[in-house]
Amino acid sequence: MEKTLAVNAGSSSLKWQLYEMPEETVIAKGIFERIGLSGSISTTKFNNEEHVRKQEIVDHRQAVLLLMDELIHFQLIHEFREITGIGHRVVAGGEFFKDSTIITPEVLAEIKNLSTLAPLHNPANVLGIEAFQRLLPDALAVAVFDTAFHSTLPEKAYRYPIPTKYYEDYSIRKYGAHGTSHMYVAQEAAKVLGKPLEELKIITAHIGNGASITAIEGGKSVDTSMGFTPLAGVMMGTRAGEMDASVIPYMLESDPSLRNAQDVIDILNKESGVLGVSELSSDMRDLSEAVAKGNPKAILAYEMYVDRLKKFIAQYFGVLNGADALIFTAGVGENDTAVRTDVVNGLSWFGMEIDESKNVRGAFGIISKPESKVKVLVVPTNEELVIARDVEAAK
Amino acid sequence: MEKTLAVNAGSSSLKWQLYEMPEETVIAKGIFERIGLSGSISTTKFNNEEHVRKQEIVDHRQAVLLLMDELIHFQLIHEFREITGIGHRVVAGGEFFKDSTIITPEVLAEIKNLSTLAPLHNPANVLGIEAFQRLLPDALAVAVFDTAFHSTLPEKAYRYPIPTKYYEDYSIRKYGAHGTSHMYVAQEAAKVLGKPLEELKIITAHIGNGASITAIEGGKSVDTSMGFTPLAGVMMGTRAGEMDASVIPYMLESDPSLRNAQDVIDILNKESGVLGVSELSSDMRDLSEAVAKGNPKAILAYEMYVDRLKKFIAQYFGVLNGADALIFTAGVGENDTAVRTDVVNGLSWFGMEIDESKNVRGAFGIISKPESKVKVLVVPTNEELVIARDVEAAK
Repeated sequence: MEKTLAVNAGSSSLKWQLYEMPEETVIAKGIFERIGLSGSISTTKFNNEEHVRKQEIVDHRQAVLLLMDELIHFQLIHEFREITGIGHRVVAGGEFFKDSTIITPEVLAEIKNLSTLAPLHNPANVLGIEAFQRLLPDALAVAVFDTAFHSTLPEKAYRYPIPTKYYEDYSIRKYGAHGTSHMYVAQEAAKVLGKPLEELKIITAHIGNGASITAIEGGKSVDTSMGFTPLAGVMMGTRAGEMDASVIPYMLESDPSLRNAQDVIDILNKESGVLGVSELSSDMRDLSEAVAKGNPKAILAYEMYVDRLKKFIAQYFGVLNGADALIFTAGVGENDTAVRTDVVNGLSWFGMEIDESKNVRGAFGIISKPESKVKVLVVPTNEELVIARDVEAAK
Repeated sequence: MEKTLAVNAGSSSLKWQLYEMPEETVIAKGIFERIGLSGSISTTKFNNEEHVRKQEIVDHRQAVLLLMDELIHFQLIHEFREITGIGHRVVAGGEFFKDSTIITPEVLAEIKNLSTLAPLHNPANVLGIEAFQRLLPDALAVAVFDTAFHSTLPEKAYRYPIPTKYYEDYSIRKYGAHGTSHMYVAQEAAKVLGKPLEELKIITAHIGNGASITAIEGGKSVDTSMGFTPLAGVMMGTRAGEMDASVIPYMLESDPSLRNAQDVIDILNKESGVLGVSELSSDMRDLSEAVAKGNPKAILAYEMYVDRLKKFIAQYFGVLNGADALIFTAGVGENDTAVRTDVVNGLSWFGMEIDESKNVRGAFGIISKPESKVKVLVVPTNEELVIARDVEAAK
């Protein structure tokens, strides 16, 4: 039996999912957290069981060792070489990688190079790749890029209106993010709608703690709200999204605690968005509770959050010159019924009407009324499955 | 006969228009250019005549002296005190000024204070105010703020998703610009459409070298594309518009010629937009010529320019949840038939259809087909008239 691991490595975490392929059966999944920090913890799930283990994990290599040990221990595999493929999520593929790619030494070097575009993410992804390389040198390793799906953006969409040299010499352009998620939910939505993806215009709203909106025409990403980095676009849990850039030097000049432009960007990434306005939480569940209690700052944050979603979705109706469907996915998109209602009702002129009897937590498929011109869907995302499929395709 | 001057003072220029009020007849108009620089020049127009004078003008006070001298010389007025009112355009009114205001010493002090929000514009506006105060101390002086029309923005639209203290302590929020223009063309459009402004949803596209789009509901601005400063929003002649803020520290780190965040903002204000991408010109007339010749960088700049306009207009269809009319105004909006065609045809799904027989240079009024659900209009802007009216209203 051939098994494939889908891996998503962060700087202090490693998420994994073990598939039986090509059946696409999930055998087990889990996460290592606080790697290299105090209080490391690993969680493994299979057969509706959850095994939690607390023990020091000094680095990603040790996490991978523990993972393999557990897979054998729980008899999920019998020998290492059963795992014939490993897919690694890589955040930034730059302009170099337009598709998932088998990892060679040259490819790995290029992924390291691209760390300038994703300084928090790519180095962590590399740690995951290298840890598995040592333990499973014979498995086919494939890099699946978060940006690859957006490589079809037309130049008018990916270029910024700044002097050309900053694009040509320094690669400053829109790259987007959440590509595998946008692609997956668009494909699934086409199945639900019973139409070929090639004939559809779809707007996908991947709204989690990070969030991006994508305009998809004929299965291809033609515009997306995240930009050069994941700071851009809609308002997020802790990220500001689109801004007047002049605010940066003004904040820097006004606030003596800020030393340089990067300090300002850190605030826009980590202390802004829902958290910054509500002064409460970056989590939409906490926000909804506070809204229900009438907290004015929470209400403002919620209104701004919905406003920015509406603006980007409306914008992409413009880019596509009309759309067949709007898809909600990811943490907030799959579970926050109020956000879905307020976004869709706020855009009723666009021909969308929500069916509240279908707009429930954990809904799957169409949640708009039958007469709704534009269909509204909830499709749970599954980035791990896309990764596993791309490994299978590379074999 | 009572006469009113509408004045728009820049750092090295002073534009003026002399009205007979309340008839709203333009008696004369003109401009002083290169004040305080070599090659000063003044132009005066009346009765279809144009008088150009080249002589050194050292400061705004001298310009005003020359102006009064000319008005007497050409017998446009017979004595200074015929001018009973002077309206001054002021770019930034901050949160303080929500309407046009009679200029007292306290008001003037506050306008100076607000220079932090418009460091290039407010000090120049003050120069103009002070120059007229000395020569025409008895005339009623009124400040007409570019931001006042946007004082009706709801908090969800004017607040940025950044920590609250930056709004509360440093007044960082969206202020917008071109307010008098957006208001004027919306009012005129309502007349053309034969409906009360209060019952209309209108999107106004003021597109000149600077450009902003505004969503107007019931005569009130509810959202606008310029932000804390006039850098934000659509792509402009030399300005980038909306950006991923992360680009700023990245440009700073990559390009050794940039010393600080303000240097980057200067590039985004002065060397970006159409100029930065085309590497040719900031002027849409030059761009169109280059596009016609097949220049690839000019074509890209043009496509990006139209793309950003479409996105903001579509966005405001979202904010308003549908609109009755789209209005084009200012230099490009009034004269560039290709931009109008490409924007409107690119948004045909929204129920707009252009009538090419009406879409001519210098068109006035409706340029959409009778069956067009959303009406498209061209309305020449007239900020000076708004200024003169506001002076009249303050008397």
